[in-house]
Amino acid sequence: MSYSYPALWKVLAGAALCLSLEMMFRCIRRRRRRPLREVLFFPAPLSCTEPVLSPGLSCPCPLPHTDTALCRLLRLLLGAQRSLEVCVFTVSSQPLARAVLQLHHRGVRVRVISDSDYMASHGSQIGVLRQEGVVVRHNQSEGYMHHKFAILDKSVVITGSLNWTVQAVHTNKENVLISDDQAYVQAYLEEFERLWEEYDPATYDFFPEKDQK
Amino acid sequence: MSYSYPALWKVLAGAALCLSLEMMFRCIRRRRRRPLREVLFFPAPLSCTEPVLSPGLSCPCPLPHTDTALCRLLRLLLGAQRSLEVCVFTVSSQPLARAVLQLHHRGVRVRVISDSDYMASHGSQIGVLRQEGVVVRHNQSEGYMHHKFAILDKSVVITGSLNWTVQAVHTNKENVLISDDQAYVQAYLEEFERLWEEYDPATYDFFPEKDQK
Repeated sequence: MSYSYPALWKVLAGAALCLSLEMMFRCIRRRRRRPLREVLFFPAPLSCTEPVLSPGLSCPCPLPHTDTALCRLLRLLLGAQRSLEVCVFTVSSQPLARAVLQLHHRGVRVRVISDSDYMASHGSQIGVLRQEGVVVRHNQSEGYMHHKFAILDKSVVITGSLNWTVQAVHTNKENVLISDDQAYVQAYLEEFERLWEEYDPATYDFFPEKDQK
Repeated sequence: MSYSYPALWKVLAGAALCLSLEMMFRCIRRRRRRPLREVLFFPAPLSCTEPVLSPGLSCPCPLPHTDTALCRLLRLLLGAQRSLEVCVFTVSSQPLARAVLQLHHRGVRVRVISDSDYMASHGSQIGVLRQEGVVVRHNQSEGYMHHKFAILDKSVVITGSLNWTVQAVHTNKENVLISDDQAYVQAYLEEFERLWEEYDPATYDFFPEKDQK
């Protein structure tokens, strides 16, 4: 009997130590996987985006080669490996359109939804994207398709007030929120899939609401 | 010496048990405090907002009394206890303006930033807010103040593509992201304070960029 008590304590101590170590490792692991929680504010000062879009090539342009919110946004987009969903009201920013095209040419599955009223407006890059083979769908109802979000690899969502236009990027006060929180990513992905189906060209009804005006 | 070993094991077991219990409580506490991660999608169908804006009064209007994304947004706003920062491009939605006014009359510190070009446009509620004593500041530079965010009690941020207009709420495809993640809240709060200072009427310079046109 004099031997059994210490043995019991040893077992207890061992079990408790194992449990606390396991808990500690869990906490450390949770802390190490740093969540992506970022906000970019615009306007971004004019700067050369070639260091991001054509890394390795030295650009002789006179623009400052500083890192801006636009550069950060481009780098994020170019980080996509498998898929990119873009659901943006207007796209006239050439650097942003070039990033989308680079992904498309690299084999990333790119799908774009945009607003029908602004697709053909001056400077729109939607035609350029389509010419290169990117599939673009658009609304056919009276309201605007006013979203400004994108989803990378079904794991990161980018959303906010920023249209992908020159004015929005370089002149307006704008914000872009970036998150890899799956609660957000899933919500935006479901909205994208809903709209992608709704805007399927096979179901176009030639803008009946607009014809009634 | 035969007494000291069991005592050491007892101390060790006690310490390890305490540590593991502490870790377990931390994990449980973290799980219990459910973070606010929500996305609202618009358009919201037309519905009566009186059940949210005037609870307790029965409204005889013919609109459906259903719960919509607008109702949820109004309830969130009306939940503010101490402060509300609104930084929105255009405000023409009467229910949203009424919610802001209710908070103002209830003693919540309300500050509004809006875009100068759209403040006086048809249906804008900015004049109504000012008449009731809400302090509104606006941009005086050429670009748009295009943000669409609000901060409640310095602890919840609401942001997205939604202008606070009738068309945005009831016709457009729009999104509103809601979060109590302090990384986001702080970023938007700092942007608000920057703009609040920048748009201080004491520093107006009578739109010099616009005069140069």
